[in-house]
Amino acid sequence: MASVVATCLFCRIVKGEIPSFKLTETEKTFSFLDIGPLSKGHSLVIPKFHAEKLHQVPDESLQDILVVAKKIALAIGCENYNILQNNGRIAHQEVGHVHFHVIPKPSESDSEGLVIGWPQSKPSMDELKALAEEIKGKL
Amino acid sequence: MASVVATCLFCRIVKGEIPSFKLTETEKTFSFLDIGPLSKGHSLVIPKFHAEKLHQVPDESLQDILVVAKKIALAIGCENYNILQNNGRIAHQEVGHVHFHVIPKPSESDSEGLVIGWPQSKPSMDELKALAEEIKGKL
Repeated sequence: MASVVATCLFCRIVKGEIPSFKLTETEKTFSFLDIGPLSKGHSLVIPKFHAEKLHQVPDESLQDILVVAKKIALAIGCENYNILQNNGRIAHQEVGHVHFHVIPKPSESDSEGLVIGWPQSKPSMDELKALAEEIKGKL
Repeated sequence: MASVVATCLFCRIVKGEIPSFKLTETEKTFSFLDIGPLSKGHSLVIPKFHAEKLHQVPDESLQDILVVAKKIALAIGCENYNILQNNGRIAHQEVGHVHFHVIPKPSESDSEGLVIGWPQSKPSMDELKALAEEIKGKL
């Protein structure tokens, strides 16, 4: 039976088994153009380490990611852009290998770049205080 | 005249001049609950270094960010979540100091968690190849 890594689309791109429009490669990361871009320059930065979700990636693989994303943003020359990483299908993750989107936002139009909805809530200060204590207890 | 750092909301939170529901602090980063959360546990991780946009943050400040975001995701215990960082007002940035959102997505509902619109395009392989070469030339 094939392993997850052997069949993972992004692991196969890293290994060169599937072609990609590669931008950068470091010991720990790989980056390439998204072929279904939300805007011109939309790129992906991934850890070579196979993990489905962010919290499963070793720290030493995470440390490189944003340094590479920054380099790409500078090379694209975009002033406005979003960095997005989705975990889980209901959170809009489509490939089961951690990937960070660098998505230029060339205009305010909803027809290009990331479109964001923001259903903000207003918990009480007491609720937030209790929640912060609860999370800190698990950190 | 006050400097940008002296008046920046998040710089003042880091300095303790404005209270926050603090979660973690390292030499380079600070994290706290978002007080207008999209879902329970919505947190922010910021570099202490003041910069408006990602590409202005020194690499050594970027290296810590996702390690902290991972810790918070594990402490919250969310399986589904988004990591989001917005650059520029048209890209939904509301505070002019780089911040990474950790946003749990507890359900598919558009009433909680990040809501994402995805206006995907389909450029030709030739267009993508030319763009990759152009970006690589600037890396």
